[in-house]
This record gives sequence, C-alpha cells and structure tokens, in this order.
Amino acid sequence: MTELATTLDLPRPYLLFLGDITEPGFAKTAYGLRDWGREQCVGELSCSPDAVTLGLPKLTPAQARAQGARSMIIGVANVGGRILESWMPSLLDALAAGLDLVAGMHTRLVDTPALVAAAERHGRRLIDVRTPPRGIPTATGRKRSGKRLLAVGTDCALGKKYTALAIWKALKKRGVSADFRATGQTGIMIAGSGMPMDAIVSDFEAGAAEILSPGASPDHWDVIEGQGSLFHPAYAAVSLGLLHGSQPDVIVVCHEAGRTHVLGLPEYALPSLEETIDLNLRLGRRTNPAIRCGGISLNTSKLSESEARRLMASESRRLGMPVADPIRGGEEFERLLDACLHG
Amino acid sequence: MTELATTLDLPRPYLLFLGDITEPGFAKTAYGLRDWGREQCVGELSCSPDAVTLGLPKLTPAQARAQGARSMIIGVANVGGRILESWMPSLLDALAAGLDLVAGMHTRLVDTPALVAAAERHGRRLIDVRTPPRGIPTATGRKRSGKRLLAVGTDCALGKKYTALAIWKALKKRGVSADFRATGQTGIMIAGSGMPMDAIVSDFEAGAAEILSPGASPDHWDVIEGQGSLFHPAYAAVSLGLLHGSQPDVIVVCHEAGRTHVLGLPEYALPSLEETIDLNLRLGRRTNPAIRCGGISLNTSKLSESEARRLMASESRRLGMPVADPIRGGEEFERLLDACLHG
Repeated sequence: MTELATTLDLPRPYLLFLGDITEPGFAKTAYGLRDWGREQCVGELSCSPDAVTLGLPKLTPAQARAQGARSMIIGVANVGGRILESWMPSLLDALAAGLDLVAGMHTRLVDTPALVAAAERHGRRLIDVRTPPRGIPTATGRKRSGKRLLAVGTDCALGKKYTALAIWKALKKRGVSADFRATGQTGIMIAGSGMPMDAIVSDFEAGAAEILSPGASPDHWDVIEGQGSLFHPAYAAVSLGLLHGSQPDVIVVCHEAGRTHVLGLPEYALPSLEETIDLNLRLGRRTNPAIRCGGISLNTSKLSESEARRLMASESRRLGMPVADPIRGGEEFERLLDACLHG
Repeated sequence: MTELATTLDLPRPYLLFLGDITEPGFAKTAYGLRDWGREQCVGELSCSPDAVTLGLPKLTPAQARAQGARSMIIGVANVGGRILESWMPSLLDALAAGLDLVAGMHTRLVDTPALVAAAERHGRRLIDVRTPPRGIPTATGRKRSGKRLLAVGTDCALGKKYTALAIWKALKKRGVSADFRATGQTGIMIAGSGMPMDAIVSDFEAGAAEILSPGASPDHWDVIEGQGSLFHPAYAAVSLGLLHGSQPDVIVVCHEAGRTHVLGLPEYALPSLEETIDLNLRLGRRTNPAIRCGGISLNTSKLSESEARRLMASESRRLGMPVADPIRGGEEFERLLDACLHG
C-alpha cells in the first residue's frame, strides 16, 4: 500500500513535436522549452511543411534517439486540446524509435488506444503531465530546511512562470545553489519534473507542495512557480494550498502593468499590489512566520522601454521595494534579486 | 462531451448496515444518520449478534425493500477503511433484494469485483460518496440569488457539521425555507445529496461549491456544512474554495471550548475567534461583499452545564455577538439564529 510520493519526472533530453500547427500562439509550450531549456532539446519535428519552426535541428525520431533524446514532447496545443489523427504517424514513429511520449493536452495519451498498444509493444512510456503522481500525502506543516521563493500574483496568466524562471537563472548565474520548481504543464516540461498543482485533489494540495520543494541545505533556494491568485474566484484554493505547502521565505508579487480586472471576469477588479502583498504574507505566515516580500515583478510587455522604466521607478518609490520586469532585466532586476536573497 | 454537473444523489430511504462493529466510535456515521435523518432510515442490519445497535427495527434486506428502502448504506468504518470479507454475504444479499449500496470508505465499492459483478447482475448501483460527480466546471464567481450560511471553524472536527444541521433544523422549525448542503461523507449520507469537497480537484473546488448551493428564491437559506479551516496547514485549500464558491451571506464560526492547538499538530496554535472571524470575512468578501458573521457556535461538550452557560455568556460579552452551543440549544441559540437571519 505504501508508496513514496515524488514529483513527476520526465525523460530528457527531448525531441520537440510541432504537429502541423501554423499559428505560433498554439506552440507556446515549444517556444518556452526552446527559450528556457534549450540544452534539453536535441531538435524539432513537424508533420507538415507549413508548420511553425523553432529554428532547432530538424530530426526524425530515429536521428533524435541516436543523438541521445529519451522522449518526444508534444509542444503544441489546439483549440479542443485533442491529439489529431494527422499527428499519429509521427507519434507512433517516435515510440518505435525508442522515445517515450510526453504531453499535457486535455485528451490524455493513455486514453488513445493506438498509442497505448504501440507503447506496450515497444516498451515505452506515455506520460501525461496533467496526471499527478500517485500517493501524495496530506501536508504535515513541518518546517523544512533550505530557502524557498514563491512567485504569487494579482491574477492568472501575467508572468509568474517567467518570473520564477528568470529569478532561478539569475541566481544560478550569481553562483547561488537553486532549483526551479514547476507547478504547471509548461513549467514541468521545462524543468523536466514538477507537480501539476491544479490537478491535485484539494485535500492533498498543500501536501503536494511540500513534496515539490523538499528540505535542502540551508543556503539552497527553491524558486517555485506560482499558480492562480488568492483573489481569483475560481482558483484561490490552488494558490492557498501552494502557499501553505511551499512555506516560502520570500514572495515576489507578479502583476501586469495596466491590467485592472481578472482575466475573463470583468466584474472582478484586481486587488492593489499592497493588498496582494499583505494577504499573501498574512496567509503565508501560518506555515512560515518569517515570510517576507522581496519585491514586485511587473510585466511591462505592452509598454515602451522608457514608459516601462518610468513606471518601475515610480512604483518602486511608492511601495518602498524593488520593482522590476525580469524580461527587461537591468539594474532593477538585480536590486530585486538582492532583496530576495538578503532582505 | 458536455455534461450538466450536479451533486451526488443517494437513493432513499436507507437500510443502515452495521457490520460486526462492536465499538460505537466506529459507527459514528450510522448514529449521525439515526439522529439527523431518522425519517430516512427504515431499519438496521448487522452480521453479528455482538454488533452495536441503533435501536431501529432489525430488518433483512428483503424486508427493508418491502418497506420502501432503496439502498443499504454502510454506516460503519474500521481502521483501514476496508470492506471486510465477513460483510460480503450481507452486501450481496442487499443487492439481490433490490437495494443499491452506498459507502464512504477508503476502499471503494466499485473496486470490489464481487460487488461489481453482483450489482451488474441485479441492475443495481454502487455509490461511493468519496467519488465526486463528473463534469464539475471551474467557478464563474457570478453572484447567485437566495441566502447562504456557511459554518467555518478554527480547526477540523469540532462541530461544523452538527452546527449546520442544527441551524437548518431550527430554521425549518421557524418556518424558514432552508436546505442543508452537505460537503462531507456523513453529511452527504444524512442529506441524501451533496458534494465531497475534499475529494474535488483543486482547480474545480470553488466550482463544486457553486454547484452545491445553486441560485434560489430570495428568502431561501442554504445552510452549508464547512470543511477544514483557513488556518489548517493541510486543508486550508478546501476551506477557501468552499468559502469563495459558497458566497455566504453569513458565516457562523465553530470552535471547541478549551482546544488550543490544531488536532494532531501540536506545533500549530489555534487562531483566536477574532482572527478567525476577520480572515473568513476578508476572504469571503471577494465573492460576496455583504458577508457578515452571525455569531459563534461553541462546542462545550467537555464542560458542565453551568460552566458552559457561563463561558458562552462571557464570550458573547467579549465579542459582542451571540455565542451558543447548538447541542445545548436554549436562548443563546435562538439569539444566534436571530442574528443569522436578521443581522
């Protein structure tokens, strides 16, 4: 009966599958993998000459396998989240070439009989990153060693994953021992492991977060991808379980400049940054009384460079803490990192 | 693909199955059903002369069926949450007699092949109340008509279910249109329907709460059983999803007199009543800005009558709101009901 719960773990490096997708917006996962995990991608494969390209070497599954690839990852989505018939020859080819298949679509690989049969025949695995690992326990609430940073937000889909990835990369560059801890599909594919927090049964939500960022040496940092928002009328349960279980020492609050309402819910105004900081600290204090806010990660992608720098400066003065756009980098971002590391 | 999500619904009335349980503590569900849903219980059945009894008519499945029973409910638990071999003849007998089987144990009925085969043969259903209904959507956050009261708590297992049941019964007695909305196994069995909130995937937690207490006529009250606590390091996600999705107009804060720490977690001190009220109102305001606290439900079962009345009076003065023990009833409880209904 007893099973030791772990995170999902993906076989790497990958061959990235692009299907016949022509619209870059549907290949966000593939672009994310290229941008944040280039060294784990041996090449790309599509099944149409018109498909988008990432500029990686174009390889057949057999070629990718010969170059060390261990799995082919479906890096694209379509409207229904379905595995298309036109993709099947490539998917079967990958299994035959000795690659496992990894996907995060609505339709699960294991619910596609032809893939199940082929995987069995070739002794390969079908890994759905929306399916949580088994045996996750309820949280213990016990304080763990090591340092943790959690990206939280005023809303969904405004840069929590990119913020965590950028901070992780920057910490590594500074020589700090750090891991990126992924909580969503794309993040899990980039990291090669993680916990699909929104797919966990509520009773085990905080427990899953505890498993995701285990005890570590005192100067090690786990940089944890946030999910949802404490203020989101649908997803706050995910955010609170993640906050309690992560026991963060530091939060970084993510926000998109100019966003005033919850995405898709115009009747819900976004909270202020002050309110977001305050509520996250108040709730986070329950499992880590030493929690503090390192600063603000401001998504300024819709502003010009000068507008962005001006807004970051004025917000930083107003709030009395670093405000940076990790994608723009610069001095502001270095100050944010300093504040996260040293308070 | 589209399925209209509903709550679990159980076929009633019941025959209560007591197995061969001799320890009343393991028959809590059966006692709860007798105490709160007597009119839905046609009788009891055990498979040992030494088993506990509820004082209900002892009936065979066939006799129960003849008296209108539609299902036999397993009202006992054992340490492992398992379906014992010694129970099987009674369970198979019930299916053969035309009763569905209902259980809330760790081992699911549908994972017991002999029961699956018999249910199929007799055209009966096996209903596990830990298994949520299918097709639950994410929450919309849209304000619903009707009134809602949610029992919240400083901790788990201190009387939220009993508080909600007592308030519901008392409202009905006053002629108020009211429903008890169950969120846990025993509650669901008592109500005959409900939503197993701790078994819902986190992303859908608030959505499940929305389904549980749908829009109703303006003077109708849904009295909703609470789960966990916002301060519980393992279960707060369940509590927040339930709070957001329920959009309560009124909360009643449940506490056990003398309990100072989270059950089973001695390193976690319980929050004060003031802090519990404040945090629930602050978070609940997100989906219902008009939320207010009706008062305190104080579990005084470990105190004498005079100690209990004295404590309720002093706490009521200190907090400036009604403090009552619904199990003791009395004037205090009537004042609590007044405050819930009229503010």
